[in-house]
Amino acid sequence: MYKINDNYLKLPGSYLFSNIAKKVSAFQAANPKKSIIRLGIGDVTQPLVPAIIDALHGAVDEMADAAAFHGYAPDLGYDFLRHAIATNDYKSRGCDIGADEIFVSDGAKCDSGNIQEIFSLDNKIAVCDPVYPVYVDTNVMAGRTGTYDPQAGTWSNVIYMPCTAENGFAPELPEEAADIIYLCFPNNPTGSAITKDQLQVWVDHANKVGAVIIYDAAYEAYISEMDVPHSIYECEGARTCAIELRSFSKNAGFTGVRLGFAVVPKDLKAGDVSLHELWARRHGTKYNGAPYIIQRAGEAVYSEAGKVQLKEQVAYYMKNAKTIYQGLKDAGYTVSGGVNAPYIWLKTPGKMTSWEFFDHLLEKANVVGTPGSGFGPSGEGYFRLTAFGSYENTVAAIRRIQSL
Amino acid sequence: MYKINDNYLKLPGSYLFSNIAKKVSAFQAANPKKSIIRLGIGDVTQPLVPAIIDALHGAVDEMADAAAFHGYAPDLGYDFLRHAIATNDYKSRGCDIGADEIFVSDGAKCDSGNIQEIFSLDNKIAVCDPVYPVYVDTNVMAGRTGTYDPQAGTWSNVIYMPCTAENGFAPELPEEAADIIYLCFPNNPTGSAITKDQLQVWVDHANKVGAVIIYDAAYEAYISEMDVPHSIYECEGARTCAIELRSFSKNAGFTGVRLGFAVVPKDLKAGDVSLHELWARRHGTKYNGAPYIIQRAGEAVYSEAGKVQLKEQVAYYMKNAKTIYQGLKDAGYTVSGGVNAPYIWLKTPGKMTSWEFFDHLLEKANVVGTPGSGFGPSGEGYFRLTAFGSYENTVAAIRRIQSL
Repeated sequence: MYKINDNYLKLPGSYLFSNIAKKVSAFQAANPKKSIIRLGIGDVTQPLVPAIIDALHGAVDEMADAAAFHGYAPDLGYDFLRHAIATNDYKSRGCDIGADEIFVSDGAKCDSGNIQEIFSLDNKIAVCDPVYPVYVDTNVMAGRTGTYDPQAGTWSNVIYMPCTAENGFAPELPEEAADIIYLCFPNNPTGSAITKDQLQVWVDHANKVGAVIIYDAAYEAYISEMDVPHSIYECEGARTCAIELRSFSKNAGFTGVRLGFAVVPKDLKAGDVSLHELWARRHGTKYNGAPYIIQRAGEAVYSEAGKVQLKEQVAYYMKNAKTIYQGLKDAGYTVSGGVNAPYIWLKTPGKMTSWEFFDHLLEKANVVGTPGSGFGPSGEGYFRLTAFGSYENTVAAIRRIQSL
Repeated sequence: MYKINDNYLKLPGSYLFSNIAKKVSAFQAANPKKSIIRLGIGDVTQPLVPAIIDALHGAVDEMADAAAFHGYAPDLGYDFLRHAIATNDYKSRGCDIGADEIFVSDGAKCDSGNIQEIFSLDNKIAVCDPVYPVYVDTNVMAGRTGTYDPQAGTWSNVIYMPCTAENGFAPELPEEAADIIYLCFPNNPTGSAITKDQLQVWVDHANKVGAVIIYDAAYEAYISEMDVPHSIYECEGARTCAIELRSFSKNAGFTGVRLGFAVVPKDLKAGDVSLHELWARRHGTKYNGAPYIIQRAGEAVYSEAGKVQLKEQVAYYMKNAKTIYQGLKDAGYTVSGGVNAPYIWLKTPGKMTSWEFFDHLLEKANVVGTPGSGFGPSGEGYFRLTAFGSYENTVAAIRRIQSL
């Protein structure tokens, strides 16, 4: 008789965003005339820019022509895209990353979930708290996290690094040595960023203790301050300790297009074993490449027209971020984030829990956000709003919150 | 210090198709004037049909319009596609499979590699021999297969079910009870098929011993004989023992478009635990959906125009299959497959090994095929040719082989 992977049964309840969806549906059903504004899930709303649309149409036409048709893609991605990434995201910032160190994928969620596979089950992970749930959940599924304490909302074999107002939402080096350290900057959900000097401390630490850093830089396009690094490879020594995950979802509106990439430097080795080769083997065995037409769309992100148009799109969302940040501040809320990230993180007023504030906002202002506690115990008492709505909805939502 | 997943190090050498590519490159470099015909890797060559191209262009236009733009897809796939699949692939064949039992993915390779994750490491797998390498390799990576015997080319904890001329390339029920049984029909690499009655024996066996069948039906569009089932759910009782994996790669030319799906019936349970729910959790946590525009292309596969156009495309490849089959038979080869599948499986002449015949064919006829031994020990002495080339190339290749 076959047996299932029991680790799946350890996962508590359903996913944060399913719970939110259920609550919102129930409220809408009970109040059909109320117009709800959603600033919860981090999904984009602006259409793809013309340069990307043109590239998609062009690639579709190629697929209609036997001479230009593309079948299976190269395992690790098309050279045209890998070169565009290496040149624009790395060489231009002085990072020593080659095109052949880039693995094209269908998004950072898959990569951040799958990357743990190349590591032994006998590793201890460290995560920020609050944190994007995928890092921990995929380690739970693999069996690396020990037992769950439903009271505390924590796993016995996970090192939690609190990120709260007290430390400026920047994690401190863990006292207990971790093997795999997940970092995400600019941060989801807090919207905070760290400087290059702060990130250098992590790189030095990882190299010293023999840890590997999984660096999720999905929001780098939103960085506005000069001293905030766009890539961990801006730090010295990162090639021997860090894997970087990147996404086209937020800088180019690809949440429904699906494209991302991982960087695994060839210098990253555990003894004689190259992590680059392990990830290549994983990619070659379990993945069959991102669609040709989507990779051409990714290339267009780096075209001259694409860059100009996407700069405008990011600016559009950042105007929303500023509107939310300033509007909440004016209304007396304690707010952070929103400067180098599309997320605004606010302290719930009074002694409200995150979910109490969620209900309050939904019922009184008909605005949907995300309870901070859904991202981990240190998120309790906080709340996330995203800048990915339309400008009109964002302004309306803030007016409603201000008039509470 | 972090530790890697040692299971990866157990994987022998590099992948079959990489070896072939290296040999072909070396030959081409040494013989720049020779024109090589590739009938090796199972990649399609015909362009996407007009109905699919139209759907792609239409969906791209939607993505350019804020009102029609699509962000994150529903976790398990868009309803329009899941309904089209349920209606056309299942209800039309009398299979009791609902749209909500279908999980849209980016291809059968990913699904066949990932599906093992929802099972305990403490399961024993059974595979046909020869077999598509992904089933075994992904179980090796997970740590389920024991130790490798490089002499025999087998793993100590895998049950091999030989498929050779002696048993008509149809596996026999394993003597030792397996927990997870991988079956692929029409078969890659042998091109053989089994009847509905033969498949029913497997379903009954699985239900009796408490095994789960992973049924890879990626080639069902090539079935020409009436008594060959297109889906395992044509067999009674399959809802309680089988997961089916399907692909758009071969019926619609999507090798570079990337779309597939898995069917996990709600009746499939290990005690109280629903495998459907486990796979839904896996999908929701580690995957972010196939691109909207690609799912629209998948829907077009089931449109009236799409069906007509794809029937012609499949017929085109099957004409190639017939050409190869008959041409080799006329030349005195022992041949099978090619009737319900796009693969032709031939006995190497004399006492040639599979790789010797590969070299012989490459050097003397400048034709590339796939050595049977690359698919497992029982593939030794066999060779695979695919029908996915152009008709002109296929005819030319067979002429060259005939004149050897």
